[in-house]
Amino acid sequence: MGTFITLTTDFGLADGYVAAMKGVIYSINPEATIVDISHQIKPRNIREAAFVLSTAYNYFPSYTVHIVVVDPGVGTNRKAVILKTPKAQFVAPDNGVLSYILEAYASQPLPDSQRVKAGPDLKAYAITKSEYWHKPVSNTFHGRDIFAPVAARLSLGLMASSLGDPVDTMTAFTISHPSKQGDQITGHILHIDSFGNLITDVRQDFLPTTAQSATIELKGYSIHGIACTYADGTGPVALLGSSGYLEISIGNGSAASFFKAEEGDEIKIAGAQAVDYHVNRK
Amino acid sequence: MGTFITLTTDFGLADGYVAAMKGVIYSINPEATIVDISHQIKPRNIREAAFVLSTAYNYFPSYTVHIVVVDPGVGTNRKAVILKTPKAQFVAPDNGVLSYILEAYASQPLPDSQRVKAGPDLKAYAITKSEYWHKPVSNTFHGRDIFAPVAARLSLGLMASSLGDPVDTMTAFTISHPSKQGDQITGHILHIDSFGNLITDVRQDFLPTTAQSATIELKGYSIHGIACTYADGTGPVALLGSSGYLEISIGNGSAASFFKAEEGDEIKIAGAQAVDYHVNRK
Amino acid sequence: MGTFITLTTDFGLADGYVAAMKGVIYSINPEATIVDISHQIKPRNIREAAFVLSTAYNYFPSYTVHIVVVDPGVGTNRKAVILKTPKAQFVAPDNGVLSYILEAYASQPLPDSQRVKAGPDLKAYAITKSEYWHKPVSNTFHGRDIFAPVAARLSLGLMASSLGDPVDTMTAFTISHPSKQGDQITGHILHIDSFGNLITDVRQDFLPTTAQSATIELKGYSIHGIACTYADGTGPVALLGSSGYLEISIGNGSAASFFKAEEGDEIKIAGAQAVDYHVNRK
Repeated sequence: MGTFITLTTDFGLADGYVAAMKGVIYSINPEATIVDISHQIKPRNIREAAFVLSTAYNYFPSYTVHIVVVDPGVGTNRKAVILKTPKAQFVAPDNGVLSYILEAYASQPLPDSQRVKAGPDLKAYAITKSEYWHKPVSNTFHGRDIFAPVAARLSLGLMASSLGDPVDTMTAFTISHPSKQGDQITGHILHIDSFGNLITDVRQDFLPTTAQSATIELKGYSIHGIACTYADGTGPVALLGSSGYLEISIGNGSAASFFKAEEGDEIKIAGAQAVDYHVNRK
Repeated sequence: MGTFITLTTDFGLADGYVAAMKGVIYSINPEATIVDISHQIKPRNIREAAFVLSTAYNYFPSYTVHIVVVDPGVGTNRKAVILKTPKAQFVAPDNGVLSYILEAYASQPLPDSQRVKAGPDLKAYAITKSEYWHKPVSNTFHGRDIFAPVAARLSLGLMASSLGDPVDTMTAFTISHPSKQGDQITGHILHIDSFGNLITDVRQDFLPTTAQSATIELKGYSIHGIACTYADGTGPVALLGSSGYLEISIGNGSAASFFKAEEGDEIKIAGAQAVDYHVNRK
Repeated sequence: MGTFITLTTDFGLADGYVAAMKGVIYSINPEATIVDISHQIKPRNIREAAFVLSTAYNYFPSYTVHIVVVDPGVGTNRKAVILKTPKAQFVAPDNGVLSYILEAYASQPLPDSQRVKAGPDLKAYAITKSEYWHKPVSNTFHGRDIFAPVAARLSLGLMASSLGDPVDTMTAFTISHPSKQGDQITGHILHIDSFGNLITDVRQDFLPTTAQSATIELKGYSIHGIACTYADGTGPVALLGSSGYLEISIGNGSAASFFKAEEGDEIKIAGAQAVDYHVNRK
């Protein structure tokens, strides 16, 4: 049984909303250790919440319970779910915020659709047992009144099956992936971090082993080669970031500002294979 | 005796001020669980601190100690106080930041004045026993040198009466309340949250049971009826928020920006009673 | 052995970076108490990180482990170090972020150079034992993969000497200090806090005992005398701040905005000695 609970929300830190959730959790499990992942997800930005969660959840102890509350449909008939993987449990609205988790554990690639089947390592439950909620339940704050008490009870060892009813499918959004044509890869900016680094959807294992010599094109600029550290060079560099994605960075500034880049912008990686034979690799 | 301590300040998160307070608390009570309510109260905004605290404190375990440090008069002769309610203890400057707590537990409505009498469920103490403070005491940071060590000792079970001297009255500001004339309610915007939701001073129990059909007027706009969720409609909606106040919201944007609204702005609610007889209520 | 670990970074709070570090720490030491000092250090601002750390670390329980990750050289050949003082341990890149700690414990004044010798109360170790790191080590996130696991192991009682190899010198930047000529002191703005207070490098013990009557000049303005509290007067005041430095403040506003002041700006303090004999001191 885990006693760790993480929180990912779009609530910001100025109001008392996050603290109210923590108060509810501690009232049920005073021994819980609560860790903030982020409360500065852009309002209602389900994709950003899903990505930020995906870069952090895997570093937590086994059986950690991760709550995500980016929930523009709160109070409507959208489901609230508990998703169990072999290593963790997630408590969230069924609106796509768990798409990267679903992709990581799905028994087959996510289809280009909105519904994902639970696989052998994925069990999902619709949160239905209202006797475990905080009363009265506000129509506008299920984070405090449903997700927080449900997560607290999971952290105490209560089974997901006691808190809800099994469901076979969950909502996922179409995750951005790069494509390959000949020796050219087309990727996209997935996320811009607070340094202004441009994190793309091109994962390390999608790149050829010769990628160090590739040319990367973005917004009319070319970057030659893939560097090892932010400090390589004073202009823009491409490098493999800490979550395994190719990212574009400027050592002493913001690549987002320099390139006027936005999430979804295209990036092209070309020429890696052509120069394979004369590259010196470490 | 509780081991939970919350913090509400206007210190922001960039400097080391909040951490210094936490270090002092942990040095006295290493087993304390410290929870941030907010450190992004606007500088010196006593009313905002009081409101944000009022939306969160009640969700914490019994005997939690709540510290509030929004303290423009630090170092002057304003008192510092411990306020005890049946469920919690508060450590704060005596400048009005505890006005909502005083109102909630006062034996009679708060008068339109600056001084509130302690009632049977309210006991107040001026913090005077300097042997429990962190030395040397800075004139500009009682949060670290007085409030933090006093709260830490309360969390260890020391009695408020050991840390200070009883006082009969405390400072409160005049809390904003709506008024009713015939079938029209006049309220005011109490707080704008980080989503841009406009939280008014009209509490659920002040509204007639027919309020669903009311017309709400704000800054020259009219909103018809009270909705159940943020997702009802794409324009502005009025609904009962998670703290029990009527609020104005825009499902996919900021009501504060849309209405160019500010704290204190007036809101009118009309027509609820006239249509009482033909409203279908859930 | 302490179980307290603090974090000072320039990561911001929007991304999952800080949480990934906490997850790594808790996976190694589930009993650790982790405290944020600041994650809003300006990107790559080593001096600001060093200053903010210096105002908070000393309030923590003995044996606290302080991690600092403001690390523009991550992945290059800059060293990572553990610095031990009699009361605490620090885990950081060897880039100057520990300059104030080095100055506080150095056996002699810091030279105007980049290298500081470890003294009897200062022991430094280069972090070299990769068996204690989180694998794979990202070139761009040693905070998560090296500093966090090393700090977690220190918090469990592992000796610094088991985690690295002794080094004799560490990098420090030249710390800003005031100078004195006759009865005039020339200081500089060290840090601007989130209230807009201007914290100077003039420490209390550098001021003559007659400083209350001094004239302080900044950006063409004069302030007469040193006040006791922020509330003294409605315009700019000079006073001794909570970290022992002379600071310039405006009770109900931002001194930084009023003076259009920046870090490094000069401040002059004059006339203190001349009026020594007729000052009434408390």
